[in-house]
Amino acid sequence: MTRLEKQIQFIKELEKLKVIYRQNRVLTPDRFENSAEHSWHIVIMALILEDTCCLNELDMMKVMKMLLIHDIVEIDAGDAFLYDDVRRTEAETSEVLAANRIFGLLPENQREDYLSLWQEFEEHESKEARYAKAMDALQPLLNHSLTGLENTHNLTKSQVMEKKIFIKDVSEKLWEVALEAIETCVSKGLFRDE
Amino acid sequence: MTRLEKQIQFIKELEKLKVIYRQNRVLTPDRFENSAEHSWHIVIMALILEDTCCLNELDMMKVMKMLLIHDIVEIDAGDAFLYDDVRRTEAETSEVLAANRIFGLLPENQREDYLSLWQEFEEHESKEARYAKAMDALQPLLNHSLTGLENTHNLTKSQVMEKKIFIKDVSEKLWEVALEAIETCVSKGLFRDE
Repeated sequence: MTRLEKQIQFIKELEKLKVIYRQNRVLTPDRFENSAEHSWHIVIMALILEDTCCLNELDMMKVMKMLLIHDIVEIDAGDAFLYDDVRRTEAETSEVLAANRIFGLLPENQREDYLSLWQEFEEHESKEARYAKAMDALQPLLNHSLTGLENTHNLTKSQVMEKKIFIKDVSEKLWEVALEAIETCVSKGLFRDE
Repeated sequence: MTRLEKQIQFIKELEKLKVIYRQNRVLTPDRFENSAEHSWHIVIMALILEDTCCLNELDMMKVMKMLLIHDIVEIDAGDAFLYDDVRRTEAETSEVLAANRIFGLLPENQREDYLSLWQEFEEHESKEARYAKAMDALQPLLNHSLTGLENTHNLTKSQVMEKKIFIKDVSEKLWEVALEAIETCVSKGLFRDE
């Protein structure tokens, strides 16, 4: 297979991420958000909110690439709901297999680059990964405050706070935005206040 | 309104692009592709296919930003189908108004940057705009060859070729990929061969 054939095969494979649905909705009540449009949203967020981040000199190209591909493993492994700790632990192995298979469709140098970016994001240690993870954590709160209809998973405010508090170390300002979205969700009955 | 409040207002506005639907489908027959997930797809395509482009020394950050925001005007102006020339001409004025309103939600320096990127993409002259437009033209062909169900708009192969031929000036290789996708669509009855 030529280099270009491998690249096109990978690009065609990505079509599948548009039918991997998350637990959040879109603005119309007929469907849930999918991981492709979620990824688009957080890449723009990362660009727009860069000046709120307290981690200096981010490599924004790296942040953008990470966010574009961070959910691609869900094509094989499905979306593991943030608050389902058992399912998330189980998903870890299948996500590694998925990363190897899907990025494995690419020519060798690109496969190595994207696998390494995906691993860096998952490790949540580099400043780029920490900022990218903060975008990935903040967007669902904004989305849910705008589109949520019910507290399907019976979540409490404290469960949400515990999962999202790390945003504070990336940006105090963005943590305030997160808190405001959480309060909006509580006032709409989307999270229980206890 | 503070700088951050403006940024968050813009980010919330973007939620609306997820319910702007295009004429192409996704892999399941229940819905059409929306402009947010389409944008995600072409940003990754641009990264993966950079080495096939014959226009030297692309500013890839600029290409990525252009592609992320190129369809945002559809939030107000709707998606104007590529082959509907009357509707597309009519849409031009409403798209300029939309760009001013939507990018106008941002703080001043970001508003100017993104308005200028949107205009550069629309003008289709700079090498970044030409490469970005080629991605925007190639992706629907790949998508349609994978997901299309019928020739809803009674399109002919020659109509499609005429709209997409500019890809050839960006990359001979990508034009071959486009031709192959067009032939697949013809063989599936999605474009008439005449």
